[in-house]
Amino acid sequence: MPRAHPGLGWQNRIDIGGRAMKIEYRPASSKLLTFYDKIPAFLDGSDTPRTYLERCLETVAAREPDMKAFVTFSLDRARAAADAATKRYKDKQPLCPLDGMPYAMKDVFETEDMPMQLGSRLFEGYQAGWDAACVYFLRRGGAVMIGKTVTTEFAFGEPGPARNAWDTDRTPGGSSSGSGAAVGSSMVPVATGTQVRGSVLRPACFNGAWAIKPSFGSMNLGGGFPSPPSVCHLGILGGSLADTWISAWWLSQNSGAVPGHPSLKGEAALPKARKPARLARIESAGWAETPEPTRAIFDDMTAKLARRGVEIVGRADDPELDAYEQDLITLREIMEVTLTFEGRWPLMMYADRSPDLLGDRVFNRAKAANDVTPLQYEEALEWSAGARRRHEALATKYDALITLNATGPAPEGMPVGNAVYGEQSSVLGVPALNAPLLAQDGMPLGIQLLGYFRRDYDLIALGHWMIHAILREED
Amino acid sequence: MPRAHPGLGWQNRIDIGGRAMKIEYRPASSKLLTFYDKIPAFLDGSDTPRTYLERCLETVAAREPDMKAFVTFSLDRARAAADAATKRYKDKQPLCPLDGMPYAMKDVFETEDMPMQLGSRLFEGYQAGWDAACVYFLRRGGAVMIGKTVTTEFAFGEPGPARNAWDTDRTPGGSSSGSGAAVGSSMVPVATGTQVRGSVLRPACFNGAWAIKPSFGSMNLGGGFPSPPSVCHLGILGGSLADTWISAWWLSQNSGAVPGHPSLKGEAALPKARKPARLARIESAGWAETPEPTRAIFDDMTAKLARRGVEIVGRADDPELDAYEQDLITLREIMEVTLTFEGRWPLMMYADRSPDLLGDRVFNRAKAANDVTPLQYEEALEWSAGARRRHEALATKYDALITLNATGPAPEGMPVGNAVYGEQSSVLGVPALNAPLLAQDGMPLGIQLLGYFRRDYDLIALGHWMIHAILREED
Repeated sequence: MPRAHPGLGWQNRIDIGGRAMKIEYRPASSKLLTFYDKIPAFLDGSDTPRTYLERCLETVAAREPDMKAFVTFSLDRARAAADAATKRYKDKQPLCPLDGMPYAMKDVFETEDMPMQLGSRLFEGYQAGWDAACVYFLRRGGAVMIGKTVTTEFAFGEPGPARNAWDTDRTPGGSSSGSGAAVGSSMVPVATGTQVRGSVLRPACFNGAWAIKPSFGSMNLGGGFPSPPSVCHLGILGGSLADTWISAWWLSQNSGAVPGHPSLKGEAALPKARKPARLARIESAGWAETPEPTRAIFDDMTAKLARRGVEIVGRADDPELDAYEQDLITLREIMEVTLTFEGRWPLMMYADRSPDLLGDRVFNRAKAANDVTPLQYEEALEWSAGARRRHEALATKYDALITLNATGPAPEGMPVGNAVYGEQSSVLGVPALNAPLLAQDGMPLGIQLLGYFRRDYDLIALGHWMIHAILREED
Repeated sequence: MPRAHPGLGWQNRIDIGGRAMKIEYRPASSKLLTFYDKIPAFLDGSDTPRTYLERCLETVAAREPDMKAFVTFSLDRARAAADAATKRYKDKQPLCPLDGMPYAMKDVFETEDMPMQLGSRLFEGYQAGWDAACVYFLRRGGAVMIGKTVTTEFAFGEPGPARNAWDTDRTPGGSSSGSGAAVGSSMVPVATGTQVRGSVLRPACFNGAWAIKPSFGSMNLGGGFPSPPSVCHLGILGGSLADTWISAWWLSQNSGAVPGHPSLKGEAALPKARKPARLARIESAGWAETPEPTRAIFDDMTAKLARRGVEIVGRADDPELDAYEQDLITLREIMEVTLTFEGRWPLMMYADRSPDLLGDRVFNRAKAANDVTPLQYEEALEWSAGARRRHEALATKYDALITLNATGPAPEGMPVGNAVYGEQSSVLGVPALNAPLLAQDGMPLGIQLLGYFRRDYDLIALGHWMIHAILREED
């Protein structure tokens, strides 16, 4: 008899007579691990955070040898934190909605109990000695950090060893590779990621996880590696939209945002599903690189939304959208200038000091950084500001924008996949979701929903509606 | 015979028969150490950066025992850097206008050769292992770091041991205490400071140095302690306006700005003096706390400007200025909310972990940080954005704003002096200068000139004009 791991809901591998079998990703039935729905059980004593953690660790024992999602673990401290949370639930006094929630932290943030190694040989064993803002506040809320997850080198260079949760021959995506694999394989319900070029949304897309890349600035990056800071976002990958949103919202409220920005608005609950009246269907630079089978799946999905009464408008129907699509082509060049200039420090310093410890991509960006002028950078900033205004202008017509998060399911061979669909939300600073509601060849395929600046909660309400609209059988 | 230290121009102490005598600060004749005017001598071989450095180090030997401006020195590396610069000048190939320039670095930035101790017992001996952005690019341009200067604890708490360059019984100001003392006593021609609440301009004011607190965001703070980042500025203190400006401009161009902001505009030269047509005379919350003798000196100065043909307009003459003055009262409360909320991380973490190693002020801010809500913080951000717009609106009427930088000369007793005149430029993010063109009781007293966002170079041109307008004898 097929035997799924008890109680954890991960279904992408089963044991048949001791032999692992791949299970296909099916959006309607493949459930990942969730946390918030367990809180009533913690409160009535039928489950505890410690027991929940041990179930996670059983999954880790079973899946991690294949996933290679983690760089380091901090299990003693995790167990102590889960015990403390267990006691608080017993006393009916949890600290917050995240109390007792196991999570994994992308290894681009400092922690007092583990090194920050950034996927870089230069940072092997580097100990900062304290916690990044997100780590400190997650701990303070009672959340339970299991360990740190694989990132590509400095979140954009050489890929790490992590593998896709649904097929170990495929990439989990990057740069938040380990976080995608850890959530996709239900080792944890929630993990952090950072995105400059799609590094939160794409690993979520490839591993069947939900993810939010919130509005620029709404999550504190203090104590993290300074990935190009004007376009870098802390994001959350989770086993459900509720887990993803509540974690992001709580953290933004408590750690504060990037200084100078407000925290996420909304509340610690999934908003009521809201049906959009009109969605802008965006091709971006990605459509040209998307093969026909994936295009067909996306088109089928939008056709389904249309049958549900949502007006779907594309570039052919609206000159303003056509101009916006042109922006998204230019945006790729602008991002390149931005990333390169912001790499002047610390990358040029690393390249001066330890060129042999850098991968080619990192070393080449450090070299290129010296050739971008402050004036070119300023022009890139100005272009980006204009593009943001043009994006916000769409709010009068469209509830949100809809597109893909990748050119197809996770590929074999290509180290972390194609970032082409990811740059838009980072340069524009607008909130974006991965909704893991499609599949291709038994692998997850994510829908990208893009909203408007600092209206993250509205976007979550639309994402909530999408679940029912896409997964329920046709009426 | 009185004997001034040869060639260095510091005049605030002389030896008479081996006994130190205080010399009064006289704006027209008290010259501090300068660097850029020596470049022709480096190029023609009549002077060298190494010899220049050794003269600085003689001054250090003579003054530092009284000043206590430095926390750590890195003299071997400084001498090696000066020798390398000497060779480049000999080959007529200096790297940039800063090549060979000795400077001191406020101890709130990481350096690979010295600890970053932040004036905090918690950071005693802390070694980051690499250079902050400003340090790396200054080195890269050939500038010669002598050492790191005293800061108050985390740039706002317990004062350090540094003393005023013109009277060792008085404070050098804070938080960039050591940088003020080091430039004021001509141990170095240039030093870095950081300002949140006047921490660049006030130490400059108290020690008779020039200083620029540039437009918000225009100097890269990467690798520095995260003083409240939405109002923290890297600034430059220097022995002349030219030294101050050229250092700031070059660094901003090369290290880049705070990511997401453009670098300073202008060029590596003092702009031509430009006479303002009309200046707004600002009282701010400071005037009420300013004793009569200091008020009289300020009023004499503005009367002199009026005789030079500059229209001086105050709150009584312009309702818009009166409303602006009201803003400056509210601004103090807004700053408090901002600083406190942005102290959530890392201060709350420090207070959790090591309360005994924090001074009262730091500990209290960490405690207070937990009580400011994200909504209060967001309202503070919105108020600040509105105040910035109201400030910029003044540009149609006034070339700049003029006020004091302190309620009087450096006081005895009060640890680092009154910050009341300093908060305006930090919250508004506008460029501000200290022009050390006044004196009281033989001590320096600085004029504050405030400009408009990202028009720093225009402000320097006005500052240049002020030198002649104020220091030359009446026609």
